[in-house]
Amino acid sequence: MANIFNNIPADIPNEIFEDIIKTKNLRVERIVSKGQSSPDTGWYDQEENEWVIVLSGFGEIEYINGDKIILEQGDYLDIKAHVKHRVIATSPDEATVWLAIFY
Amino acid sequence: MANIFNNIPADIPNEIFEDIIKTKNLRVERIVSKGQSSPDTGWYDQEENEWVIVLSGFGEIEYINGDKIILEQGDYLDIKAHVKHRVIATSPDEATVWLAIFY
Repeated sequence: MANIFNNIPADIPNEIFEDIIKTKNLRVERIVSKGQSSPDTGWYDQEENEWVIVLSGFGEIEYINGDKIILEQGDYLDIKAHVKHRVIATSPDEATVWLAIFY
Repeated sequence: MANIFNNIPADIPNEIFEDIIKTKNLRVERIVSKGQSSPDTGWYDQEENEWVIVLSGFGEIEYINGDKIILEQGDYLDIKAHVKHRVIATSPDEATVWLAIFY
């Protein structure tokens, strides 16, 4: 057994990406942010669909069409492959823990 | 956008199972329990691996070898296919919200 909120450093100078499950068809990742936006430049343009939920903190997603969505605890979103998006803000004071399923 | 903690009825006479993602290779399910154990009789003996996390409340899992594990908020477990297990207790006072990935 493990806990999704464990092993979060106090200082998070860069976002932390960790695989939890990785198979041929599936990747489940924990992402921990603290004030970062990502990617550094440009947009995510992903081969896979991404289902993502915020488990602590908050994150703001922007789509290339200008739509912006703030995700708080428990909020989830399904981002289809090749729908360009980026994270424009995350909680500066507490860690934002995301669980992302790439499928 | 949706929230994993929304649409939880006050009365939960039976566990609630809802698909969030369903593809050929993947099923993601929200399970909401309140005091139930499951299955009603016997053991889960599943074709797929199950990764499961508790997001609120708690649940106690028993394996057929007698091992018991209590999962509280944020705790997760990877249960391999055909590893027989069952849920022997869930929080009686608040809803236990599980997110399960069958893969």
